Amino acid sequence: MATYLITGTSQGLGLALTAQLLSRTTAEVSHVFALSRSSPSQELRELLDTHPSRSTSVVASVTDDLAVGAAVEQVSTVLGSRGLDVLINNAGTNDTHPKGMRSVEVEALMSVFELNVMGVKRITIAFLPLLERGNEKKIINMCIIAPRIELAGEPHEPTYAYKVSKAAMNMLTMQYALDLQDSGFTVMAVSPGWLKARFGGGGVAQLTAEQGAEAVEEIIREATKEDNGKFVNIRVPGYKFGGTIEAYPRGEMPW
Amino acid sequence: MATYLITGTSQGLGLALTAQLLSRTTAEVSHVFALSRSSPSQELRELLDTHPSRSTSVVASVTDDLAVGAAVEQVSTVLGSRGLDVLINNAGTNDTHPKGMRSVEVEALMSVFELNVMGVKRITIAFLPLLERGNEKKIINMCIIAPRIELAGEPHEPTYAYKVSKAAMNMLTMQYALDLQDSGFTVMAVSPGWLKARFGGGGVAQLTAEQGAEAVEEIIREATKEDNGKFVNIRVPGYKFGGTIEAYPRGEMPW
Repeated sequence: MATYLITGTSQGLGLALTAQLLSRTTAEVSHVFALSRSSPSQELRELLDTHPSRSTSVVASVTDDLAVGAAVEQVSTVLGSRGLDVLINNAGTNDTHPKGMRSVEVEALMSVFELNVMGVKRITIAFLPLLERGNEKKIINMCIIAPRIELAGEPHEPTYAYKVSKAAMNMLTMQYALDLQDSGFTVMAVSPGWLKARFGGGGVAQLTAEQGAEAVEEIIREATKEDNGKFVNIRVPGYKFGGTIEAYPRGEMPW
Repeated sequence: MATYLITGTSQGLGLALTAQLLSRTTAEVSHVFALSRSSPSQELRELLDTHPSRSTSVVASVTDDLAVGAAVEQVSTVLGSRGLDVLINNAGTNDTHPKGMRSVEVEALMSVFELNVMGVKRITIAFLPLLERGNEKKIINMCIIAPRIELAGEPHEPTYAYKVSKAAMNMLTMQYALDLQDSGFTVMAVSPGWLKARFGGGGVAQLTAEQGAEAVEEIIREATKEDNGKFVNIRVPGYKFGGTIEAYPRGEMPW
């Protein structure tokens, strides 16, 4: 009977995760709030329309204080006396700029930071009172493997501004985990794999958004307090990086 | 005969580092450009006045594109046909907010990020043409040990916004190291220790700004291309964390 709120649901992983959650039984997932920056995409609309009694479209940019405040009101009204069990911070951007330090403008880096870090902070703080009333108290921040500083040179990784912003977001995740551990929360970062969604690169992406979503949902469902403060990789057997390293072995990864 | 530019020189470590550099012989340090956000402090002014032929005060906020552009012009004019050998990105802020996720405003986090990350980016890109004409090609970003994500809960560490911003800055440092390694640069992060400057906490700070500056200057002077992309701790024997762990053993630290 868990209630979920997920951001960035119009496409890609967010859309696939919304579908995955709604494919569970009502006893498992009682309500899904699907946040999108602007009006829901046709795919999201069609998905929510097939589950009208247990899904709600919420339109708000994670960069907009007023819109996020209104979103909290809307969600609170639908929840009534229930709390929010799980928050999935999935909205984010990879910058579209080419790699390389000289080609990324200060403004571009700031706007990526505003979305990928401040967006997570704004949403998390805004929904914290509803999460405190929930039973599961899970906050899940999506982050592909990339931001490990010692791996910054790996060729399969995304661009510059993304990595800088996600290194910051991971620190935010860890600090939230520390701040909330005595309140019964599980705060963790989850890597969804390198997906064939708009976000991913063509040639190197290995998994479909649906594969990533299924694996992520399994991690979230099975997460316990023991996972607080962890950065967890998905489990999808049979995919290798560089032909040798198991890409998705499930389990804790170093920050 | 190396030329240095250092930011954040009005007080604390930056002031001590400027003094340390100017204490070297002219054959070692031929010129020091001391950047400060506003008019130099009295201590900085007195220091520079004792070395008028090989020091220059440069006033510019690292958050101001126009001021930084004017600073590049000023430095370039003084340098003439010489290049800039070493850039020390020392300017930065610890936020003054109490710890804890609920107490840090979005605006406060953004302003810390603007100074600690964007400031480094802006200064580095602006002075890169002069650094490319230099012989040493060293870019040194100051960062106390704090930002290691797995150590985020250590009690001696600084506040929330600082850690988030410095995790991002370390990723920036690593990407600059990668981008510039084929151009002969040494880009590294250096931890100056936990200093009894305005920045540090009272009880836990162990070293004076002068001790930190001397140890940092030694690292910078001895740094070679082999150190590109490293995060290096200072060497100051005899200080321990928690009574047992050598605090400043000099050497590479994990990111």
